Amino acid sequence: MFCFVNNDLVRQQDARIGITDLSIIRGYGIFDFFRLKDNVPLFIDEHLDRFFISAGKVFDEVQLKRGELEARIRQLIEVNEIPVSGIRVVLTGGYSPDGYSIGKPNLIITQEYIEFPSEESYGLGVKLITYPYLRELSEIKTINYMTGIWMRKEIARAGAFDVLYHHNGLVCELTRSNFFIVNQENEIITPDRNILRGITRRKVLGIARKQFKVYEAPVSLEDLNSAKEAFLTGTTKKVLPVTHIDDFVIGDGRVGVITKLLMQGFSEFEDEFLNKNT
Amino acid sequence: MFCFVNNDLVRQQDARIGITDLSIIRGYGIFDFFRLKDNVPLFIDEHLDRFFISAGKVFDEVQLKRGELEARIRQLIEVNEIPVSGIRVVLTGGYSPDGYSIGKPNLIITQEYIEFPSEESYGLGVKLITYPYLRELSEIKTINYMTGIWMRKEIARAGAFDVLYHHNGLVCELTRSNFFIVNQENEIITPDRNILRGITRRKVLGIARKQFKVYEAPVSLEDLNSAKEAFLTGTTKKVLPVTHIDDFVIGDGRVGVITKLLMQGFSEFEDEFLNKNT
Repeated sequence: MFCFVNNDLVRQQDARIGITDLSIIRGYGIFDFFRLKDNVPLFIDEHLDRFFISAGKVFDEVQLKRGELEARIRQLIEVNEIPVSGIRVVLTGGYSPDGYSIGKPNLIITQEYIEFPSEESYGLGVKLITYPYLRELSEIKTINYMTGIWMRKEIARAGAFDVLYHHNGLVCELTRSNFFIVNQENEIITPDRNILRGITRRKVLGIARKQFKVYEAPVSLEDLNSAKEAFLTGTTKKVLPVTHIDDFVIGDGRVGVITKLLMQGFSEFEDEFLNKNT
Repeated sequence: MFCFVNNDLVRQQDARIGITDLSIIRGYGIFDFFRLKDNVPLFIDEHLDRFFISAGKVFDEVQLKRGELEARIRQLIEVNEIPVSGIRVVLTGGYSPDGYSIGKPNLIITQEYIEFPSEESYGLGVKLITYPYLRELSEIKTINYMTGIWMRKEIARAGAFDVLYHHNGLVCELTRSNFFIVNQENEIITPDRNILRGITRRKVLGIARKQFKVYEAPVSLEDLNSAKEAFLTGTTKKVLPVTHIDDFVIGDGRVGVITKLLMQGFSEFEDEFLNKNT
């Protein structure tokens, strides 16, 4: 498996960066991650848009050119040949002269095998646990996943798939996914603030709007109790039904009708994208 | 300059770790940092206590032995010979098999030149700006300084020294320091929750208790308005007076009498520690 470290195409097992990088000592960096299907990078334009927005917000100057970045990604896809996989593009804080100041960012592009949720998860829905947490700079895709990874044991203990963060009584997002509910009026609602705006979220909103009333609006913890359906979206999760949150059951505890329609709708949308881009 | 990467003593410019380390891709890691004076590591026992507590909280198993860690630190101090400097001990999330799971932690020990606040800062006091932020897992010394570093420009624009975080109306801490006020009754108060418990904070509390009424208790934003004095504490800041916060002036805008006593008291305490440990 090859990867890029700045301008160099290197074998991943040999790829290294210096230990004064601000990602290592101060957790400072941003990234994006997208999926390949049949070797086609899905929604790469939107992911690179977001990557450069994140970069612009945490670095004074981003010298990286979009065309060059895209060329390296295409080269990596060609060299590695892993038709179903993920591409991670990381921009770190760079080598710090004093352990705190930003240096010249290091660019790392890796390709990774990915694992989808199980058939059972899609068929029966998953359980979430809730936890009060506001992801800092939540609109930026920073590398900071400290709380989510720290919670791995609690998630496992609860037999849950992931954790749903909330802040001041409002639901935000999961560790790496966005969250949606369907209310008793068959309206689809997804939190509008304190979240990372996922690319899958955006696509699903577009698909849903063709058939349903859709709102980006606050979702309170109480709203979960009265929700008929719930699901999450993410690059490697697609549309995944949620049937249990903490100790309560969403709707009748089975995957909802609207969730199923959106799972199907997103799958077709992906296929259309592939048809147009191959 | 030499450093340790796991068991290896290497030149810092050659010291590297692999790019799949969870610090680089997920900001996952903990650390501690202490200061050398006359080549003596100040309060090293307390710092290593805290390092192992942090490590125990974010890793399932910490195989690193304290004696071995201390031996490496002593070796580094001997090899580098930088009598006034800092030692940073980082334990990263290790090489992740899947971009999210924890691997075997990588240990990095570096020695660094340090810069103290200016004479002027000690003589006239510094300005802080405030910002609503709760550091996640605040009692653990994680590597996550995303918000603090992101705010560097706003801090500079305001002509401030640092940012004072607050949460739900209560003052917490600075990016890398603890915060104290002196109220109109000459009582010393420092926030008791949502903070990293600094080693300098602990020493200053001990020194202050000999002469004053001291409380670890909530400090509200309103309390700042009525404070007579304010100061911050930290490993490379020692005791640093604060005279301005946002647009308001603390007390009469000059370094307070009790702050001066504690600056002096901490300096003497350091000297006593040095005398006992050389």
